[in-house]
Order: sequence, then C-alpha cells, then structure tokens
Amino acid sequence: MKALVYHGPGKKAWEEKPKPIIKEATDAVVKIIKTTICGTDLHIMKGDLPAVTDGRIIGHEGVGIIEEAGSAVTNFKKGDHVIISCITSCGKCEYCKKGMYSHCEKGGWILGNLIDGTQAEYVLIPYADNSLYPIPAGADEEALVMLSDILPTGFECGVLNGKVSPGDTIAIIGSGPIGIAALLTSQFYSPAVIIVIDQDDNRLNIAKTFGATHIINSAKENALEKVMSITNNKGVDTAIEAVGLVETFELCETLVAAGGHLANIGVHGKSVTLHMETLWSRNITITTRLVDTVTTPMLYKNVQSGKLDPKKLITHHFKLDEIVKAYDAFGNAAKEKALKVILTA
Amino acid sequence: MKALVYHGPGKKAWEEKPKPIIKEATDAVVKIIKTTICGTDLHIMKGDLPAVTDGRIIGHEGVGIIEEAGSAVTNFKKGDHVIISCITSCGKCEYCKKGMYSHCEKGGWILGNLIDGTQAEYVLIPYADNSLYPIPAGADEEALVMLSDILPTGFECGVLNGKVSPGDTIAIIGSGPIGIAALLTSQFYSPAVIIVIDQDDNRLNIAKTFGATHIINSAKENALEKVMSITNNKGVDTAIEAVGLVETFELCETLVAAGGHLANIGVHGKSVTLHMETLWSRNITITTRLVDTVTTPMLYKNVQSGKLDPKKLITHHFKLDEIVKAYDAFGNAAKEKALKVILTA
Amino acid sequence: MKALVYHGPGKKAWEEKPKPIIKEATDAVVKIIKTTICGTDLHIMKGDLPAVTDGRIIGHEGVGIIEEAGSAVTNFKKGDHVIISCITSCGKCEYCKKGMYSHCEKGGWILGNLIDGTQAEYVLIPYADNSLYPIPAGADEEALVMLSDILPTGFECGVLNGKVSPGDTIAIIGSGPIGIAALLTSQFYSPAVIIVIDQDDNRLNIAKTFGATHIINSAKENALEKVMSITNNKGVDTAIEAVGLVETFELCETLVAAGGHLANIGVHGKSVTLHMETLWSRNITITTRLVDTVTTPMLYKNVQSGKLDPKKLITHHFKLDEIVKAYDAFGNAAKEKALKVILTA
Amino acid sequence: MKALVYHGPGKKAWEEKPKPIIKEATDAVVKIIKTTICGTDLHIMKGDLPAVTDGRIIGHEGVGIIEEAGSAVTNFKKGDHVIISCITSCGKCEYCKKGMYSHCEKGGWILGNLIDGTQAEYVLIPYADNSLYPIPAGADEEALVMLSDILPTGFECGVLNGKVSPGDTIAIIGSGPIGIAALLTSQFYSPAVIIVIDQDDNRLNIAKTFGATHIINSAKENALEKVMSITNNKGVDTAIEAVGLVETFELCETLVAAGGHLANIGVHGKSVTLHMETLWSRNITITTRLVDTVTTPMLYKNVQSGKLDPKKLITHHFKLDEIVKAYDAFGNAAKEKALKVILTA
Repeated sequence: MKALVYHGPGKKAWEEKPKPIIKEATDAVVKIIKTTICGTDLHIMKGDLPAVTDGRIIGHEGVGIIEEAGSAVTNFKKGDHVIISCITSCGKCEYCKKGMYSHCEKGGWILGNLIDGTQAEYVLIPYADNSLYPIPAGADEEALVMLSDILPTGFECGVLNGKVSPGDTIAIIGSGPIGIAALLTSQFYSPAVIIVIDQDDNRLNIAKTFGATHIINSAKENALEKVMSITNNKGVDTAIEAVGLVETFELCETLVAAGGHLANIGVHGKSVTLHMETLWSRNITITTRLVDTVTTPMLYKNVQSGKLDPKKLITHHFKLDEIVKAYDAFGNAAKEKALKVILTA
Repeated sequence: MKALVYHGPGKKAWEEKPKPIIKEATDAVVKIIKTTICGTDLHIMKGDLPAVTDGRIIGHEGVGIIEEAGSAVTNFKKGDHVIISCITSCGKCEYCKKGMYSHCEKGGWILGNLIDGTQAEYVLIPYADNSLYPIPAGADEEALVMLSDILPTGFECGVLNGKVSPGDTIAIIGSGPIGIAALLTSQFYSPAVIIVIDQDDNRLNIAKTFGATHIINSAKENALEKVMSITNNKGVDTAIEAVGLVETFELCETLVAAGGHLANIGVHGKSVTLHMETLWSRNITITTRLVDTVTTPMLYKNVQSGKLDPKKLITHHFKLDEIVKAYDAFGNAAKEKALKVILTA
Repeated sequence: MKALVYHGPGKKAWEEKPKPIIKEATDAVVKIIKTTICGTDLHIMKGDLPAVTDGRIIGHEGVGIIEEAGSAVTNFKKGDHVIISCITSCGKCEYCKKGMYSHCEKGGWILGNLIDGTQAEYVLIPYADNSLYPIPAGADEEALVMLSDILPTGFECGVLNGKVSPGDTIAIIGSGPIGIAALLTSQFYSPAVIIVIDQDDNRLNIAKTFGATHIINSAKENALEKVMSITNNKGVDTAIEAVGLVETFELCETLVAAGGHLANIGVHGKSVTLHMETLWSRNITITTRLVDTVTTPMLYKNVQSGKLDPKKLITHHFKLDEIVKAYDAFGNAAKEKALKVILTA
Repeated sequence: MKALVYHGPGKKAWEEKPKPIIKEATDAVVKIIKTTICGTDLHIMKGDLPAVTDGRIIGHEGVGIIEEAGSAVTNFKKGDHVIISCITSCGKCEYCKKGMYSHCEKGGWILGNLIDGTQAEYVLIPYADNSLYPIPAGADEEALVMLSDILPTGFECGVLNGKVSPGDTIAIIGSGPIGIAALLTSQFYSPAVIIVIDQDDNRLNIAKTFGATHIINSAKENALEKVMSITNNKGVDTAIEAVGLVETFELCETLVAAGGHLANIGVHGKSVTLHMETLWSRNITITTRLVDTVTTPMLYKNVQSGKLDPKKLITHHFKLDEIVKAYDAFGNAAKEKALKVILTA
C-alpha cells in the first residue's frame, strides 16, 4: 500500500509500505476513506517530536471501513464504517476505567507517533472496540473526520475543562483550527459573550461568522485593554489558550476574572511565568489536558442533530495521493487561508 | 392605589387599597410598570391555596421602578428599574447562603401569597437588595417580566435539575407556559433530541416553532410507544414533568432511560405511584424543586446577548386596569391560545 | 466439581457439576478461595427472581485464584489472586464507557443469576479483565470478599448517590448487612450525625459500635418524631433506604429535609406512594441504583490503608461444603445475630 | 480601649485607641474574648503589605460577644457569642451571592488590613449578619478561634480545591499551621495516603501524630524521589502548597500525578515557573484561592460532633495584653515549637 512516511526532520515521502496485518485479537485493520493533517503533524515533520522515528507513517485522524477485525473484536465487523479516534484506549486499565484514555497504559496518543498512522491506504488500530466509533454508511464522512481529534480536543480541553456555562463571558486565544473547534463547541453551553483573539484578520473574520461576538487582532490592538473594556474591567469567566506560546498563555493569565478558568489546549515547548504574586488570591483554576476523546459519541449525536456542523472547518480538498501538496497548503495556513484539509482515498 | 384583591374562592376585584409604605430598613416600594398572571394565580382564585386569605393582593411577577428604598437598601435607589423576583430572599439565613432562596427562613414564595403582591400599582418588596434585580432604563420590560418566575422555574426545576447536557435526548411533558420555558432554556445545553408531549395541537405546534424536534399529542397517540420508537427503546436521558398530574408524572417514570433524570416542575395536589419494583435498579434520579431564582442574573445575560428571547412566550396584552378581563383570557388558555399575558400600568 | 445448585423455590443442593471451561478469549476460570451469601440469594431461593432457573449455580461474591485465563485476558494470569465483582463489565459498550457497569449490554448482574455463580469450587468469569480486581497473595481475603458486592453497594447506592458530605446529618434505615455497609462507608465523608433506624436491638447496638451517633428502634419508638427532635425539625440531609419495603421508603420521604437526598439501596417488590403533594416544593432528590462496582479499586485502597475494616461485617464462618448449613444461619439472621457469613473452600 | 497598632515596618504597640462605634445599621461591635496571630500578621509587621497603613489595628481572627448590634442586624443581639470570620461578606453583591465572599464588593479580607481588626478589646464588624457566626455560650472558645481563618483556609483552598477524595494519595507541602489545618481537614474525605513535607523535624512529628501516613524532611531527603517511591512513580492525586515559596510550588508541579490537582494555599510574593512543556499533556488542575469562609458553619458542625479537634493546633497561651510577647513566640515558631497562640482578653 501507499503511505506518507517520515524520514527525519524536513523529509517525508508518499511511498510503498507493507499493508498492516492483525497481530492481536483486539486489533482491526481499517481502510482509510478520508483523512486530514493536524498541526502536530507539522511539528513532527520539523523534528520537534523526537519519539517519532524515521520510517513512521504519520497521521492520527480519519474515517474508514473495517477491512479485517481480530477475533476478540465484537463491536465491529468487516465492512463497517468507523471514525478513528486519535487516542487509543485499551478499555481495561486504571486510566481507561476513569475515562482518561489519553493516559491509557497501553494506548493514549500512539497513532502516527509511536505506531504507524492514518495518512495511508490502511491502518492498524489496536483495541479496536474502544478506539473506533461506529457510523452509518452514507454519513457525511468529511464532517466526521473532524471528530477524530480536533473537535473533541477543542471541546474537552477548552470548553469542558474551562467549564463554559450559559451567560458566561469567554475569550479564545488563537483562531486556528483548534481555536475554531473550541469556538464551535463552546456554543453548546450558550455563553453570552465570546471574544476571539488572533493576529490574522482572515481567521478572525471566520471566527466572527462562526459565532464570536467580539474579535480582537492582538497585533493591532492591546488585547488586555480591549477585553477589560468589554468586561467592565472584570476579565473573562474562561480564557481558552489555543496557541501554545509563552505570550498567549501569559495573556490568558491577565484576562481571567477572579473565580475564572484558564483552560489550556495549546502544545507548549517552553515553560511560562505564572504570576502567583497576583493570582494566589484570585480564586482561579488552570487546567491542562491531552484530549481523551470520551466525548466523541456525544459530538457525533450533535452532528447528527444538526447542532454542530464540523464541515465549517474544512477549507481545502485533495486526493490522498496528493498529500505532499496538501502539506504545503496546510503548512502555509495563513497565506492559503487554510483551516482543515480533507484527503480522500 | 388600585390592586387586584382576592376575596375567597371565585371572588376577586380591582379595587382601591392603601399604597404600601416602608416598614423595615431593608424594604423597598416598587411602582409596577408591567406584570403578568401565573397559573398559580388561577389556583389561588379557585381556593386551592388556603394560606391565601381574603383581602390579599395577588401576583408575584413584574417589572417596576423603585418608588422608595429603605435606609439599609444599598443596591437600589428611587428611580431605578428592577425585575421583581417571585422569591423573596433575606440573603443571610442558612438557606439563602447556600442559594436555596425558595426556603429562605423569612422569605421564599410569600409575594401575592402570604404578603401583598404585584397585581397592583405599587408593591412592597422586603429584603429588596436580595429580591430585586437591576435592569437599565430602556430595556425590553415585557421580555423581562418573564424573568420573575416562569423562565427561572423552567430552567432551574426542569433543565438544571434534569441535568440536560449536549447530545441528550429529553422529553418535556406539558407544553403550557412552564413547559415552553423549559423548552426554551433547555436549548442552552444543546440537547440533540427534544420531544414535547401535550394534548393540545396548538401548543404542540408552538413547541415545534420554539425548538422541539418531535411533538406527540398524547390524546391521539401512545406517548410511551412513540418515545420508545424515537429512542431505540432506551427512553430519554431527561423527562421534565411540567403539568402536575398523577398521569403525567407516572408517564415520566416510564419514559426515563436507565441512568436518566426525572425533573419535576409541576405543582402536585395528589400523591403519585412510584414504581420502585422496576425503578430500584434503573439508576435514575428524581428531583423536585420550588424555584430559587438564583439564575435570574444569568438568564438576564442571555436575554441581553440574544441567546434567549422571552417575548416568544407573550401572546396577549392588556392594560393593568383590565386585569379581570386578562384573567378571563388566561383562564381559557386553550381556547384563547394564550401562553403569557402582559399587563401594562 | 461441587456447587450449590438452585432447583426451584425452596430447593437447593450442594452437588456435582462440570468444572467450567473457557469459552471466549476474554473469559477466565477462577478457583474459589472464599465466598459468602447475599440477601438476594435468599430471595432467589424463595423463587422471587423468576429469571433464575432450575440448575443454576448461585452466588455473586468471592475471592479466588485464576485457574485459567483466556487468550485475550491481559490483566491476569494463572495463579493471580482476585476479587470477583458481582457485576460483569464488558468494558466496551456505551454503559461501561460511562462507568455504569450495572447496565452493561453483555454483563451487569448476571453472575449466579443468568449464568452460574460463585458458590462453587470454580466459576467462569466473562470479560475477566474488567470484572475481576487484582489483590496481592497474602492479602486478608475474608475482608476482601466484602468488596464483591456489599461494600460497593452500600457506598455507591447509599453514600455516593446520597451525596453524604462533611458535617451532614444522615439517617440509615435498616441495620442489616447493607445498612451497615452504608454506615461504614458513609464515614469516608465525615457526616456529623448518623442516625440508624431498625427494629432489632442487636443490630442497632452493632450499628452503634460501628459509628452510629444515634440509634432508633422503630418498633418501640416513633422514628419520625425522634428524628425531628434530633434535627430541630429540619429532617436529615440524606436518608438511605436499606430495607426495600413500602413502609421504610415512605418513612424516608418524611425524614428528608428540604434540599435533601433520599438514596434507595433496597430491592423493592412493590410500588410505593410518593407524596408529591408535599414533596414537589421541598427541593429533594431521590435516587435508585443497581451497584456498578466502579468504586471497588478505591474501596480496596481504603482497606489497605486501614480506613475501612470490612471484617467487622463478618459474624459466622463455615467450610464451603457446609454451605447448606450456612444458608440456615444466614436465613435466621436476627436469631443467629448474623451479618455476613464466610465460606472457605 | 487597648489594641495592637501597626506603626510602619517593624513597629507595633499595645496602646490606647477609641472604642469603635456603630456607623451603619448593618454593623456590630464585638467584645473580644479570644484572638490569635496569623502568619499574615507577621508579613504585615515586616511591611510586606503596603495597603496596611500606620495606625491600623491588626488581627482578623477571634471569638467574642456582641457588645452592640446595628438596627438592621437581625441574626445577633447584645450578649450573643460569635465567631468572627476573617472575611467580611455583604451578602448581596454578585460575589457573595455565588459564595465567593473573598471577593465581596464591599468586604473580602479587610479586617486588620483595610479596617481595624481583632487584636483589640473591641472590634467593629461590618455586615455583621453575614460576617459573624453564632456559637452557644459555654462552647470551647479556644477551639473555635481556629474557625475564623486557619481551618476554613486549609479546608477550602487546600482540601476542597484539591478535590481530596476517599482512597487518594495526597501530599501537603508545609507543616506550619496552615499545612496542619489542611492535614486535619483532608481527613474529612478519607485519603488513603497523606504525605507531609517540611524542613522542620518537630513540625513533621506533629504532622505524624495528626494523621500523616508519611513524612519527608526535604532538607535531608530528596522529596521528589521519595514521593515517587511511595507512589509507584505515579505522583500524588493532590499536592497542597502550604508555604508560598517558588521552590515549594515548583516541587508540587513535579509531585502531581497525571489527572491530579495542585491546590495552592500559600501567599506568594513572586512569580513561579510553570513547566507547561511537560504539564500541557498531564491533565492537571491548578487552583488558587483566597479563603471564602463559606464552610465555617460546616466546620463548626464537625467540631461539635467531635470529628474535628481544632485545639490540636494551639501550642501557646497568653493574656491579650501580653500580645507583644506572643508575637515574639509566634515569630520564632520553629525555635518555640509554636503552631497557634491563643490570646485571652
């Protein structure tokens, strides 16, 4: 089969690899129908994640068809359509039992990282019963690719951890795909005021059409002053960090109201300064989270009911074998006005 | 001043009464701008609430202007516009401190019940700082009358107690004003499926336009069968009882899924049969609640942001001195296609 | 092997049965070390549970050693010591994923009910990875038999559902094994006042030594009056029903304070009268639950730390092949002053 | 009257001051029976809190008798015995209504800070109905002085925010009065393992007698290594920071397990480094809080029931007019083996 293979920093190729085969009774092999590229994949390609080694097939998102199911797989059979979760869950360790699949003792985020991933014609999924989600044939599979990672990530790490509630005033820092995922799913809880902060006017305008009540271009305006003016100097009930930089995290520290929440989604490469000399008495809560994908079934229900339209996130389409070109587009997201790209097998 | 006075079962009059005056430093006198009639007022008029005695001014909802504030009132001054809460809260008893204003040791639901109420030109509000909510002059006061009772009741007793969550399947039994209030506010939490059950096609059609995804006329169809067919025989995550009859409560018992919630809003005059022989192992939660109106500030924020449009509930308008006529219309709600009536001073 | 077999109402025998063998890759066969008898087993013997058919091996509690593990079992291997959960969990259905193992699509309470149980020399456990809990060799196995059912039942259905909190006033109705389990585990949350109500002085005295601050013999005293006197006429924050009769449930309805919880543990055979005419405005929560055994690992930690001493519950010891005699003792619990009996293989 | 007055960094005097008088109808004047000294008072004396100005009477803890109550005070009358809360709550602002008294718009921590405090013969308490708690005459008033600040602070900021739960493994960093308060109140939730870390063997030994299951002297041992050895390299479910230094906060960051809580109690004067490069994917929660004293009534119930013995914290006694000597003892806590000192009027 063909797959996108990482060959060290800056090197990747769409090349021939052996088709995966069932090794454990709980495995399934899935034929990819549609997949996408994540910001994390760009980091891998730069060499930022040393655990990813030469020869690894990249990718941790996608929708596919069961090609073969191991003998202990009972939820799926050959021909079933499935969403592939970016998180692998064994379903029987201490962490999985408490719904913290991200830290599964045998799984977690391994796909396209420690084991071969989904940017390929076929992928092996361990613990298939707990790591795949059933969808009917005929479902809108492009939309559902957004349920592999980006929507549960924005929702669980940003919205749920941030305890977004009806009537709240929230700020989302970062209007890239993950910030937009938080923006879309925050509206499940009807906050009254949603402020989106970014440095790219195009992305801010998209945020506006997706439900932001206020947008701030922090390259042109003083974001802190503007947020304080919107909130009568109280700050926001919830600040969602969807970038992963020191500056954006520290901006969140200043935006959050007494009693508020700072929910981090961004992947950070460096330490930040936590201003405990002011925050110690502010009754705030700061959370971090690698997505658990426990909410995928719920998100699926709200896609089915029309409360959530994940296709809003999709800006570009390619054939799967054009994936190198797709990486170029996605890697120049600002210029290409790209949010998510869909690759169709 | 003029006021609507209860004179025993079946007897009421719009008549002259003394204008109220400040008795305690924490009191305020409010000039009524707009008020409304509640289903409970109809019960009072029938004599169903023996605590309400001859000579009582009825009514527990309204928007007004501070006419005079006691010396210990600090949140309000003469001329301020306010929402009157149906629940009086002293702010300093054990119950008020835990947000259970309904059981305030000195307040609770006393307005138009144990003390004179709002269907009058002026009303005395005890513990004004904790029992009134500020609104800007120029606000949409008709809409805000709905925040005195009906919207917090539907939201707190039905939606919050019922733990309505994104993706849920819920049923609301009763499509009168209180059921509609639950319907509108349940959507703060983005349930995927909202089934409304009633015996009046007009009210069901209104429910449909207000967000119901399914409607069932239980006079014409088997509600249990239809709900089971919609839910793949699982039942609903939350059943909200918004009628107050034995039959509707017991219907809820059969509709609720394993692990689900039965949230009662209805005022009940009789015992019901609780089928513990089946429910004991179904992991369900049943809640009762007299509204606390703790969510009034939040509801106000969502009215301001446009997430909630309470005016949808208003079907009829009268002048305050036409209140006897308004009672006739509201008392024949089905025939008059009435939800809420507004009385303007 | 030998096993206790049900042969229709009133008939049981300790007789020869085939030793179970692995059928599915996720099964394990466990050699019983210690088991016990549950109140539910007495109901089965009377014929109260028609789903239990002639020939069934009874019992759903015990500690044992893995005799053989199916090929897909990864948490256990031959020779490992384990607690057997009364609830079988597949770990991969919708209910198991949300921690509601009691309603597992393929499991739930099936052991000694729909499949052969633990009152035998060997037992087959389906979905062994999710239905057994590891214990070290050398652990106090008598104590740990109490973690199969009775302690998680008292804790989950009574204490957790009843939201027992520090400083609370609680009442436990029923001082049998399950009431005592609730009494012991309620103390994890440091309630200030614990009232135990029963009609057997011996059991009440045991309750007193296990942490009850007040005991009431409802055969001799007016339980309602006494509780109101203890609680300044407020009632209790949490009433735990640990009997399963109409009278005891309805007593709980009268004992619970405004804002309080009524947590049912009892297995009910009949409907009860729910006094909605008074309860509708009392802001109470009523819960039902079949135990999920999700707290078994936590309970095990508190046994290990000495915070919980389950051996307090054990009053009688027998050899496994004396089980018919043990049933006689347990069946005359009041006379025999029996709480839990231990059967040792 | 006599009072302890701050006269700038390093300067204090027990001197004559005017007896306070009622200014607002909601005020009360309280005659001090017993008071104590807080670590914060030592900071004030050093000049670390510039908001405290020359002439201020210090102190924010104590038990007393109502000397005079303003006309709008209804919960108390002359002669009533009361606990004085360190936090003043108006009971009617947005923050008080949600139980966040620490940020009360007119109160919060003002006593002995922005207004005169309790280290005096009399003190004026604004909003007396919401800022004092009733106790019976004859109560153990020394014990109850601990409910003014230290016990609610340890409990709310450390135990509640840290979500300590039955079976948990927790670490408390700092074995001074506030760490000990967290240690005592953490046991309301029955954690299985309680590790206390400090650099003073005397305080660690006290922690051991108060319920610590493990103690670590971090001046002599590698605290991180030792905690990892106790926890099988998982870290702790909850790390409670009860010191307020950069080093102790950053130690907590390393101790907390994936999915765990870091609850800060310490008053910090400097920023800390937050290692987001590792923490971003660890699913942790960090909380800060100025005590709200919302749990004072609950703590009082557990003192009454004997679940909590606050007198354990008291090591030294002085007469109120010996307060300068008491400051010397408390200021040399390690040498004097002091936890809390009691000053009796």
